[in-house]
Amino acid sequence: MAAARARSEERRAEIVRAALEVIAERGYRGASLGAVAERVGLTQQGLLHHFPTKEALLVAVLEERDQWDTGGGGAAARDGWRLDLLDSLVEYNAMRPGIVQTFSALLGESVTEDHPARDFFTRRYAQVRAHMADVLRAEFGDRLPGGLTPEQAAPLLTAVMDGLQYQWLLDPDAVDMPAAFRDFLRLLGAR
Amino acid sequence: MAAARARSEERRAEIVRAALEVIAERGYRGASLGAVAERVGLTQQGLLHHFPTKEALLVAVLEERDQWDTGGGGAAARDGWRLDLLDSLVEYNAMRPGIVQTFSALLGESVTEDHPARDFFTRRYAQVRAHMADVLRAEFGDRLPGGLTPEQAAPLLTAVMDGLQYQWLLDPDAVDMPAAFRDFLRLLGAR
Repeated sequence: MAAARARSEERRAEIVRAALEVIAERGYRGASLGAVAERVGLTQQGLLHHFPTKEALLVAVLEERDQWDTGGGGAAARDGWRLDLLDSLVEYNAMRPGIVQTFSALLGESVTEDHPARDFFTRRYAQVRAHMADVLRAEFGDRLPGGLTPEQAAPLLTAVMDGLQYQWLLDPDAVDMPAAFRDFLRLLGAR
Repeated sequence: MAAARARSEERRAEIVRAALEVIAERGYRGASLGAVAERVGLTQQGLLHHFPTKEALLVAVLEERDQWDTGGGGAAARDGWRLDLLDSLVEYNAMRPGIVQTFSALLGESVTEDHPARDFFTRRYAQVRAHMADVLRAEFGDRLPGGLTPEQAAPLLTAVMDGLQYQWLLDPDAVDMPAAFRDFLRLLGAR
């Protein structure tokens, strides 16, 4: 039983990696369950055994990315985010439009009634705001130079990251996402 | 001919108003072409004569909202936006989740390949950033208290408005959207 579970988890991880590759190559719409199944040598029916819907697979992909970004040795430190590492994370995101597009498209869908990714994003935002407040408190203490508390600045920091992604995805030549994010960090830290 | 065109434009305006009502009552997913057609006493086929797709109708709804918000006697002034009126606009948005949800869901879809609303949002953001820069210049001159130029602050102001909407739509009890936006305005103006 334990061996079967381990094999199933390994298979899931393999499918998520394949989905990430397909997303990077073909974007959100190109990443069909069929294309992902083909990549891992499964039938579409076989893939549905592990992920019952495209949304479930995409949520697993985004969870994997969060895992990597915040602890798996990605752009952010092992023990969480720091403000200068957020800067690097945005630089890194600007080099992977496929996954940013997937995040942004699924976030958009998630605000509609009874969407299967709604719970994921609601929980994720509560966690991200709490993390951001910790990062800001570590950097500035209980009051930022501009006068806000870490808890007041955290949703704004999160909102700027998400909002800039839409502007950048729509018109990458008009919006320098990393530069704009650095401007915001300067604004937070400006005395 | 001119009379026929006027009648057609009147009909279009009537359909857009009906769509706004249906969105307010039933949200993004509930606002089907069938439901809108019924509201104005048209068959779905008759409605398709005016708007060939649901996306085309929703874009017309968002254009109508922009028109109203920036010039039609809504929360913003006749000659455009001012910074304190942006504050009122966000307050007003917090009272109309249906249209904010429609904007946010369609924005999410628009970043996917060849989406019919992609052009609308790309053009809209270029205009909104230019407007925001004008508003900021009128308020602060060529340099904001925090050190940014109006052109640097404009995409951030836009991003904060959009990003807060997602957090608020997902979890209205956890995110006070108007209060968070006022925090951001204080940050922009803080010396």
